[in-house]
Amino acid sequence: MLRTAARLFNTNGFHATKIDDVAALLNVTKPTIYHYFANKDEILFECVRVGLQSVELAVAGAQGRSGAERLRAMLVGYALAMTEDFGICVTRTGDAELSPESRSRFRALKREIDLMVRAVVEEGMADGSLRRGDARLVTFTLSGALNWIARWYNPAAGMSAQDVAEGVVNTLMVGVIAQGEN
Amino acid sequence: MLRTAARLFNTNGFHATKIDDVAALLNVTKPTIYHYFANKDEILFECVRVGLQSVELAVAGAQGRSGAERLRAMLVGYALAMTEDFGICVTRTGDAELSPESRSRFRALKREIDLMVRAVVEEGMADGSLRRGDARLVTFTLSGALNWIARWYNPAAGMSAQDVAEGVVNTLMVGVIAQGEN
Repeated sequence: MLRTAARLFNTNGFHATKIDDVAALLNVTKPTIYHYFANKDEILFECVRVGLQSVELAVAGAQGRSGAERLRAMLVGYALAMTEDFGICVTRTGDAELSPESRSRFRALKREIDLMVRAVVEEGMADGSLRRGDARLVTFTLSGALNWIARWYNPAAGMSAQDVAEGVVNTLMVGVIAQGEN
Repeated sequence: MLRTAARLFNTNGFHATKIDDVAALLNVTKPTIYHYFANKDEILFECVRVGLQSVELAVAGAQGRSGAERLRAMLVGYALAMTEDFGICVTRTGDAELSPESRSRFRALKREIDLMVRAVVEEGMADGSLRRGDARLVTFTLSGALNWIARWYNPAAGMSAQDVAEGVVNTLMVGVIAQGEN
């Protein structure tokens, strides 16, 4: 149900999507949907929560011997999440589309992920595997390029999600890695 | 008038912004606004058009001896445009928020800019100043990181737009520049 809603939000926008559209696509009645969700805002928040959770899992599970290796693994997982319905929903959802309560939970979740990435950037700068710099700015640069995948990636255009993820991350990693590191 | 509208869209979202709010902030009547614009969609399209125009001017005016030098100048101007009201509006506006007609004009303008950046990336790859690779993917990586500035940059947080623009572009340029070049 949630994936159907996410696809509709991603294609038609949150405001233009009616609960009726979700119900019709699922062949259920509107009350069935209201059995699970109090309103459209709750559905949208659940979509972005699932999307952010998959980013968080990718980020938290990244392994490697150096900060740079962990960062690369992290960014590939993050990029892949951005090619999926719920990840796309995270990028396409503006703060203003959520209710004030959902918005502050949305921001808190995004900030958590940002801090996890930034921590690995800092580790890499400290262990010498990444070029030293402003870790906050570097993190925003990396996550911006990854988040934007959700705006332009079109699976029908022929490039696989894995190729897109690795291509974008390779370009980004050359920009942050210390000289002499692979 | 347009800047006031752009700020309201950026802060409260397109759907939550009422023509009344724009009129009230400007101390004019609603009919005054309707004298210039037929509806809210026209105002939003004009905001993103102005934003894209400033990106296009920055991109078109970039000079340098090599593709890499032109690319750096281009990206700094692009990044600066993303810290301004109209540039912010470009990133925050989802395709679905515009009317079908405005949407296709919006997409066409964005595509034009994308192709201008991509042409310089290709020039740099051809003249040896940029690492060879998939110019389309590299361009999306660069523009994604720049577009995202409009989502996180907060002038009140103390960093100047110029510092943000140069910081992000420096990280990106190291990622694309050929070894041995500056």
